[in-house]
Amino acid sequence: MPIDPHDAPDRLRQFAEALRDADFAAAVLSHPRDVLYLAGTAQPGNLLVVPDQPPTLFSRRFAELARRQTHVANVVAAGDMRAVRQRLEDLGVNAGRIGMGLDTLPALLYRKAVDSFRGFKIDDVAAILAYQRAVKSGIEVEALRRAARMFGEVHAVMAHHLRPGIAEHELAGEVARHLRRAGHDGLQFYRRWDAMLHAEGAIASGENLWTFSSQAISITGVGLGKGVPFGASRRRIESGDLVNIDLGLVYDGYHADMARTYIAGRPSPEIERLADAVRACQDAALAEIRPGALAADVYDAALNAARAHGYEQYFQGHGAEHGPYIGHGIGLELDEPPVLGPGSTARLRRGMVLAVEPKLTVPGLGAVNLEDDVVVRIDGYELLADTPRGVFSVTDAGVVPVRGESLASKRNGGFAL
Amino acid sequence: MPIDPHDAPDRLRQFAEALRDADFAAAVLSHPRDVLYLAGTAQPGNLLVVPDQPPTLFSRRFAELARRQTHVANVVAAGDMRAVRQRLEDLGVNAGRIGMGLDTLPALLYRKAVDSFRGFKIDDVAAILAYQRAVKSGIEVEALRRAARMFGEVHAVMAHHLRPGIAEHELAGEVARHLRRAGHDGLQFYRRWDAMLHAEGAIASGENLWTFSSQAISITGVGLGKGVPFGASRRRIESGDLVNIDLGLVYDGYHADMARTYIAGRPSPEIERLADAVRACQDAALAEIRPGALAADVYDAALNAARAHGYEQYFQGHGAEHGPYIGHGIGLELDEPPVLGPGSTARLRRGMVLAVEPKLTVPGLGAVNLEDDVVVRIDGYELLADTPRGVFSVTDAGVVPVRGESLASKRNGGFAL
Repeated sequence: MPIDPHDAPDRLRQFAEALRDADFAAAVLSHPRDVLYLAGTAQPGNLLVVPDQPPTLFSRRFAELARRQTHVANVVAAGDMRAVRQRLEDLGVNAGRIGMGLDTLPALLYRKAVDSFRGFKIDDVAAILAYQRAVKSGIEVEALRRAARMFGEVHAVMAHHLRPGIAEHELAGEVARHLRRAGHDGLQFYRRWDAMLHAEGAIASGENLWTFSSQAISITGVGLGKGVPFGASRRRIESGDLVNIDLGLVYDGYHADMARTYIAGRPSPEIERLADAVRACQDAALAEIRPGALAADVYDAALNAARAHGYEQYFQGHGAEHGPYIGHGIGLELDEPPVLGPGSTARLRRGMVLAVEPKLTVPGLGAVNLEDDVVVRIDGYELLADTPRGVFSVTDAGVVPVRGESLASKRNGGFAL
Repeated sequence: MPIDPHDAPDRLRQFAEALRDADFAAAVLSHPRDVLYLAGTAQPGNLLVVPDQPPTLFSRRFAELARRQTHVANVVAAGDMRAVRQRLEDLGVNAGRIGMGLDTLPALLYRKAVDSFRGFKIDDVAAILAYQRAVKSGIEVEALRRAARMFGEVHAVMAHHLRPGIAEHELAGEVARHLRRAGHDGLQFYRRWDAMLHAEGAIASGENLWTFSSQAISITGVGLGKGVPFGASRRRIESGDLVNIDLGLVYDGYHADMARTYIAGRPSPEIERLADAVRACQDAALAEIRPGALAADVYDAALNAARAHGYEQYFQGHGAEHGPYIGHGIGLELDEPPVLGPGSTARLRRGMVLAVEPKLTVPGLGAVNLEDDVVVRIDGYELLADTPRGVFSVTDAGVVPVRGESLASKRNGGFAL
């Protein structure tokens, strides 16, 4: 895990200060991603943070392993919240607000906590921690950069395997194989309680590009059946199809989020126009990114570019459904704040890492999607990956960007397979 | 999805009766697996069930898709619980207990529901639905059988790729590829809020077999790093190593759960003894399975077999840590009731589908694991898969069971790769 011994205690100190500022007497974090961020271990535990006191990690299982992994000095083997309550009493903390991650904590455990912390008031602290997590340290940015660069594997797989006749789920298998070999953690951590994502992300083609299903107004794919109605389907690619892959690339627990659209064959003039427009949307959004920028302005810039190209009705959706975002934060989870959406008053901060993902979805034709990750720098932004930002035509002759830029055109797309 | 038009309304009727018996005025199910089971769609929605009234599905997104997939006649596009409240008032239901899935519903949504359903009392209904879901219909058993038979792909991959020098995560990639091609849904649905599993399950070898990490006292693997401390690691297989794979095989949303142990080379006499013992544990457990049997008796039978072979101290763990179970239910989720554990007073019912998974874990040597799935039949049980139940030696000469039973010994383990 990219926590160095100096970084991690700083996280705890910063969080304790935020607790005090928000008038919390204490916080108890139980979600594995929150505990990992603050304590440096994903072993199951409840982390007690009290302003001006040393933290305690209450291990729910395998305390010995947690002890070896965490920088928290005090690790106690006790899964019950009553042990946390006892520790609070020992510290002389007997009233006030206790923060918990109420966005993820199941109601049954919440009701138990209400009982265990009788005399306290329990409030959500997830948003405070997420605000802190949104700004990444240098070591986190390096993990995210390494994650983003794994997209080279995906590009190589598409160059090698995308041909008329292959099914979406067969492509998914090739991507999964190459990513696991490359060091992808093999899971996506998604904060939402009612949704999941495939390790290899969503692969969609043809009519599956404009069918919204399950998770979001996005390009989700329709899956293999009603049981899992998202991700790759059994649909076989036909000549000239657009094929989209949108995925989290996870390295050491950190999620890059990237997407590219490929064509199984040569592009039509309309696809070339869409490719130009989606690139213009992304360029316009990126041009807004700098410390202090308003999240809404990033969204509006992309929307204006789509409008200028005559594609407003296909921007981030179609018909009555348009996803209200052009991007979002990424990190230990794929869906972190801020959301770059219309009307958002969130301000970008230096060190935030953001996915910027314009998509144009045209029923009857397909969709083009271009998603890249940037870190907010003092003077603007820096792209994390080196994958060319375009739509690619894949044929037996090789993989080429649809507008003839001077990009790699070798059989493997310029990446080692 | 394996719901036929006759089966699904029966599920709703049976659930409504259970609600009435338990003195619930209504239930509102929001977890996608619960909605899928009762309504036949995994599109996001809140399903209202009121005894003696027609159900209503309140779609949180993509109502049109939900409408096409579900057999519920009344589908309303309304994500807010106040719409559910209004419907209850229209039905003249103004007080009593409302059941929700409090084992998974996040606390923030629970607190909103308390507000929306003021005047009602909200209680957990997840256990009642899980009790019903534990007994599978014929069509569900067929989905589970098809899922279990995908293990043939895993066996073929191990036969083909397991050699000294390959890393655990490289093996994981091969398994993931073949399973996606074979129609594995590519995700594991796990009820627990604080845990996830890899699509290709846990692959572990050498010392990773006796290291408990993260999820459970089981063979979890240790993962690629601290961020995801379970599943395949970067460890390279050495000659003579034991290698375990334990995974959910998901077909049409239904999870088989199987595990096998392989040896990269020839078995030692001690490994042969362990293989015999684990098979004896499984045989003893299976012999107890019939309608009316006590879950605890299944566990005790396996424990007694381990004791008879002199391996009690390695049964389901080692040292101070022993997993208190020999098996569990499977279905739309990997971790369904009943748990076959010590002291459990649960009674087996005809149509339950159970995973039976004895494991012997010997620090310094490794572990052997044998997990198979059975459906409880009127006169006992039926195994769902046809993979031979043993430990396998893999060498360039082929894959053979360690005790010389007359099993496939061809290079590909008898399965088409």
